[in-house]
Amino acid sequence: MSLLVVGSVAFDAVETPFGKRDQMLGGSASHFSISASFFADVRVVAVVGGDFGADELAVFARHNVDTSDLEVIPDGKTFRWFGRYEYDLNVAHTLDTHLNVFAGFEPKLSDSSKNSRLVFLGNIQPDLQRGVRAQVPNAELVALDTMNLWINTTRESLQKTIEVVDLLIVNDAEARQLAEEPNLIKAARKILSWGPHTLIVKRGEYGAAMFTKEAYFAIPAYPLEAVFDPTGAGDTFAGGLMGYLASQENLDEAALRRAMIFGSVMASFNVEEFGTERVQRLTHEEINRRFRDFKRFTNFEEIPFEKAVRAVQ
Amino acid sequence: MSLLVVGSVAFDAVETPFGKRDQMLGGSASHFSISASFFADVRVVAVVGGDFGADELAVFARHNVDTSDLEVIPDGKTFRWFGRYEYDLNVAHTLDTHLNVFAGFEPKLSDSSKNSRLVFLGNIQPDLQRGVRAQVPNAELVALDTMNLWINTTRESLQKTIEVVDLLIVNDAEARQLAEEPNLIKAARKILSWGPHTLIVKRGEYGAAMFTKEAYFAIPAYPLEAVFDPTGAGDTFAGGLMGYLASQENLDEAALRRAMIFGSVMASFNVEEFGTERVQRLTHEEINRRFRDFKRFTNFEEIPFEKAVRAVQ
Repeated sequence: MSLLVVGSVAFDAVETPFGKRDQMLGGSASHFSISASFFADVRVVAVVGGDFGADELAVFARHNVDTSDLEVIPDGKTFRWFGRYEYDLNVAHTLDTHLNVFAGFEPKLSDSSKNSRLVFLGNIQPDLQRGVRAQVPNAELVALDTMNLWINTTRESLQKTIEVVDLLIVNDAEARQLAEEPNLIKAARKILSWGPHTLIVKRGEYGAAMFTKEAYFAIPAYPLEAVFDPTGAGDTFAGGLMGYLASQENLDEAALRRAMIFGSVMASFNVEEFGTERVQRLTHEEINRRFRDFKRFTNFEEIPFEKAVRAVQ
Repeated sequence: MSLLVVGSVAFDAVETPFGKRDQMLGGSASHFSISASFFADVRVVAVVGGDFGADELAVFARHNVDTSDLEVIPDGKTFRWFGRYEYDLNVAHTLDTHLNVFAGFEPKLSDSSKNSRLVFLGNIQPDLQRGVRAQVPNAELVALDTMNLWINTTRESLQKTIEVVDLLIVNDAEARQLAEEPNLIKAARKILSWGPHTLIVKRGEYGAAMFTKEAYFAIPAYPLEAVFDPTGAGDTFAGGLMGYLASQENLDEAALRRAMIFGSVMASFNVEEFGTERVQRLTHEEINRRFRDFKRFTNFEEIPFEKAVRAVQ
């Protein structure tokens, strides 16, 4: 039932209208693995510097995240991201990025990692993602995240990487840009024709949609009156989704649908506090309560209109 | 089971990237009543000029729409709207508006209209809407549409009108603007505090959401690969919604949920061709088929995560 994530482990400095943090645990692999840890065993492949401390490792340890493949470069520094959000919390303003040891990241997989059943390729350079994908030939499901940077600068390599994964998880704008098609339904059809059997599109406050060659499934976002810090919401979503799938024997469409709900539940908690703070404190019951809420928010009785429609002459 | 709509009956001239029409039946009351006619008996209160012809009246007649209260001013001209859509079909560019007889519109309700069980106050000046509302004191449900023009120019009157209706149907941006609150959940709570028991928010390609004091319900839009002409989609949505409600004895939340689906189904057909052309040709079976599709697009098994969550030490 093992789940592997390859991505970034970072220190984030974040300012929002509601407060700030100078240094907190961030990066795609951190958000993903802590979220997924509520459902399954997770291993992290990433790189950090000598400044990565016992406090951060303790967070992973508390969540039983396996960090055997977390490479430490003692004389290097951990990736740092400095970001700010204005009142429109949908837009992250990057103030500064220090790639540090992440600039030379070469994912190294132990034999245990290579035997993972599910793999999430976090948002890194697509050549590196494809290199990892080649090392997990027996994985039952390989999922991929990416971003506009790679669509703009490495489209050809990104396309090759998309061709060899099972599930692509991107946001609305990225899906349209990738397919060069403004209509999302057409964009999805085009992306699926490249190889993945499933495309999941994140739509922020509007929820998420899943496309397969046969089916379409869409859910709203969990309704929140206050969003505090959206950093890592996408990776937390992917962590809940992949973590739930890792807990299931059968990765069929019904499981994928439930996985999207669990992903959305985890993301809804993530944005309520800084970084991973809220997710770290979650309980099983809190997660299941919001899962059940989703049923209330979306359910309707399937009673087609029975009265004979007036004959149109 | 009677349903009344007060609004505009117009001639629309529309250009899209896919074609154009110089003069077709349009206006909120037209789109609403033709859509609603598939579910219930509808009466229209509106005004037209001497140029409104037998062909247009025949459309209403074919759909059994009662036009007894459609005022005709023989020496006046019917309201005309000239619009264009670019490739981004979400944005209507108004090229010209000739209010004509609509400029002096004073809704006149016959006794039969005054006894309507359900009333839809289409998007007209809020004083006029409130005047109509006062004439239907026994209506079981009165719904209101409005637009940014009235929020900007007649906010006080609009607020008074919102206070005396049961259901407000607006789009996303209008709800935020009305409540002066960017968070939609907070905006909805504020609007409901003014009086309506239900708020329905239209979100275009992202679907629609319903807020009551007790509940939240959200649905995606019907996935369409091609949108041809979005004119009238909102009124067609309201027509399906109110028409379905008019067919139901019990206007409870479950009925409102189904009504939102039927509204979305009708809107999805509306945008596939010019004006009311597609909706006019609809069949009972086509409507029910898309209703059932919505169940497939939104359904998931309610199986909370059962494995004990790892103890967080």
